[in-house]
Amino acid sequence: MVNKPAPDATRRSEKSRRAIYAAALALVAEVGYPKTTVEAIAARAGVGKQTIYRWWSAKADVLLEAFLDLAEQAARAAGQETDAIPDTGDLAADLKAVLRATVDELTDPGFEAPSRALAAEGVVNEQVGRVFVAKLLEPQLQLYVDRLRSAQHAGAVRADVDPRIALELFVSPLAQRWLQRTGPISYDYTDTLVEYALHGIAPR
Amino acid sequence: MVNKPAPDATRRSEKSRRAIYAAALALVAEVGYPKTTVEAIAARAGVGKQTIYRWWSAKADVLLEAFLDLAEQAARAAGQETDAIPDTGDLAADLKAVLRATVDELTDPGFEAPSRALAAEGVVNEQVGRVFVAKLLEPQLQLYVDRLRSAQHAGAVRADVDPRIALELFVSPLAQRWLQRTGPISYDYTDTLVEYALHGIAPR
Repeated sequence: MVNKPAPDATRRSEKSRRAIYAAALALVAEVGYPKTTVEAIAARAGVGKQTIYRWWSAKADVLLEAFLDLAEQAARAAGQETDAIPDTGDLAADLKAVLRATVDELTDPGFEAPSRALAAEGVVNEQVGRVFVAKLLEPQLQLYVDRLRSAQHAGAVRADVDPRIALELFVSPLAQRWLQRTGPISYDYTDTLVEYALHGIAPR
Repeated sequence: MVNKPAPDATRRSEKSRRAIYAAALALVAEVGYPKTTVEAIAARAGVGKQTIYRWWSAKADVLLEAFLDLAEQAARAAGQETDAIPDTGDLAADLKAVLRATVDELTDPGFEAPSRALAAEGVVNEQVGRVFVAKLLEPQLQLYVDRLRSAQHAGAVRADVDPRIALELFVSPLAQRWLQRTGPISYDYTDTLVEYALHGIAPR
């Protein structure tokens, strides 16, 4: 209890933290990752540079945490209590539902611009890309691995299928259409991906 | 015949053109798209700025042509006479072969750095992204559409499948692993994608 801050200080810290997240996300969306500096984040958030360095050691850490928070907020707004993909026993329905929620998230303006900026930096900057994948993307993909494994136990996915590759059949097309603008994104589209992935495109 | 240049002038032009392509690709790989200027390309290629403006109206046009040339060279080096995906009558074998060639191309150092720079710019710069897709990516994807349509006529792909979506089941996972470094790329991996896409992951 000795180091517990007074309630007022906690509230002030939480408010600064939120302001810093918002400033970091807005800046990276506006000027890109390379030009987003700790100084600029501090100025925009209305805090001293030292406030940022008290909590984080570099801009990459601030941005990563801001993105994790953004993803959490989006999940909460979508009414998700936990991160896990629902298991109703109907694999196709469960996958379609979570992909439809992803379509909504990807087309949300508050999410789109900072996410593009971070993804673009990850394409050319291997270090940023690897952290982005390890901390943000891969944990989300592992939720699909869990759901597909449960489907394997239930007999809805073949036992010889590698779930980590299988999930890419519906996740990666959506990611590429969004990232590279190779085609329109819709519920119909993601529903179709799930059908093709489950049953294949060859005659059955 | 009136405007046909003398053979020497043609050779000189061709040499300048090649030098400009090489300079543009090297620069975009080194400093990124925003900092690649017509001035810098000219200086590096050892030509005057006016030589570039005689042939192209902006750096985007130079880069696009340099990339088209790079892709052509890669295809020729891989022994492809035409752009079309072979049709041996064995759809799985044909798709696996062309994806294996793509694995080789994506991991070629001369191709990788400039391609990443252009792809990254396309993620955040909608105009560059749309030109990149329309001129470079979509024509390549249409070759898969053609091959899948021919497979539909031969009964190897269901008639109700949309070939433009179906191709994404094996093309997009490879693209995402390469772009975002979400996993290793190998022949085994792309072979597996083709198997899953054709036959699905659900029990048959």
